[in-house]
Amino acid sequence: MNAREILIKACEFDKAGRRLEAFNLYFDGIQILNDLAKAEKDEAKKQHFKAKIEEYINRAEHLKKSIQRNCTRGELVERILIMEGATGHSYKSLFGKYLTNDVKEIEIAETYLREHYQFQNLIIFLELCVKKCRNLKYVKLTTKTDPKPMSDQKKNLEAIQNSLLSKGITLAIEFSETLHDREIILNTGFIIKIGRGLHYFKAPNPKYSLGLCDFDFRECFETTADIFKCTL
Amino acid sequence: MNAREILIKACEFDKAGRRLEAFNLYFDGIQILNDLAKAEKDEAKKQHFKAKIEEYINRAEHLKKSIQRNCTRGELVERILIMEGATGHSYKSLFGKYLTNDVKEIEIAETYLREHYQFQNLIIFLELCVKKCRNLKYVKLTTKTDPKPMSDQKKNLEAIQNSLLSKGITLAIEFSETLHDREIILNTGFIIKIGRGLHYFKAPNPKYSLGLCDFDFRECFETTADIFKCTL
Repeated sequence: MNAREILIKACEFDKAGRRLEAFNLYFDGIQILNDLAKAEKDEAKKQHFKAKIEEYINRAEHLKKSIQRNCTRGELVERILIMEGATGHSYKSLFGKYLTNDVKEIEIAETYLREHYQFQNLIIFLELCVKKCRNLKYVKLTTKTDPKPMSDQKKNLEAIQNSLLSKGITLAIEFSETLHDREIILNTGFIIKIGRGLHYFKAPNPKYSLGLCDFDFRECFETTADIFKCTL
Repeated sequence: MNAREILIKACEFDKAGRRLEAFNLYFDGIQILNDLAKAEKDEAKKQHFKAKIEEYINRAEHLKKSIQRNCTRGELVERILIMEGATGHSYKSLFGKYLTNDVKEIEIAETYLREHYQFQNLIIFLELCVKKCRNLKYVKLTTKTDPKPMSDQKKNLEAIQNSLLSKGITLAIEFSETLHDREIILNTGFIIKIGRGLHYFKAPNPKYSLGLCDFDFRECFETTADIFKCTL
């Protein structure tokens, strides 16, 4: 796609509420316009590019503010205390009702994605999202880098990325070494904050028992899930 | 429980439609009565025991016939052809609607329970049954012995047995080396016959992808599922 096509798509996504994708497209489009402006010899055309760049930077900044506001102001709509050893708290039971067909974009910040069970938890969460949010198009995942030498983290996340792509969903992965908050943000304005993030399940004991695959049977660690609705 | 208590329970279960359990209890009760009859010196009491034994043998045989009839006569209510590589055929999607609160007993014959994925399939099936059949009390599993030396088959099945017991469900395990038919029989009269038994899913490829836990995303091997309703 050329700059024009990218920016048209950005505007369309912006209007459709697909803000994360729109922001990324604005960003890409602006960079191409910038390169074009630099290379342009004709002063009138150069000015035209610069004016367009400014216009799109304004839109992107406005969008960015609205995305950030999404995360900082909201009212608590539900608080679920999960007791040590409790069962019946699969992701579906805990927050499945917020995963509706209105959800087009999801941001997920999960500090630790390193061990088998952590990738498994991420996949269980994504399987639920794909099944319940029929219009999901974009998931942004932020996590910390696995410092282990020979870590398979990147390879595993790329495999998950390809798997989502086959369902028409883009998974954008960002590594942040300063990440501390674990949260799930839906473009419908709901924010799900679980003290332990996705990883609040105990291992099945023994291995072959109810709860191996259906996490409603799994015992949980003690944690709290807060669900906010942002006031836009 | 003594013979009297066992046989009273057998009659209760018989009346309540819990036929598999009732049959096992008749069998146990009759064996105890038989031992008592042999040990008894008083000829009048001996005759009394023998009369009782005959009565219960008749009941048990009648019950056995009705259980067997269940498996041999029925009309096809649904035939689902699963194409090679198809998705959307988890157990829940395929036959979940037959797992109702009326289901109190399930017989499952599954030839192969040896590898990790086979135990996992069994557990996924049982998790679904426990969740959907609120009145489930008894599951009878028939399978072939794993001939491998050092096999964990018995240990794994016992772990699953204990796990079900914690939900108030008895899992009776029978090994049959001549087993060939794979089928699931519900006490409501439905019989589910899948060509490949429970094992019609391909492995997730790559490992970390949609379908790791939600088998509606798993690709399937080609197979046919026939669902019969027995005509009692």
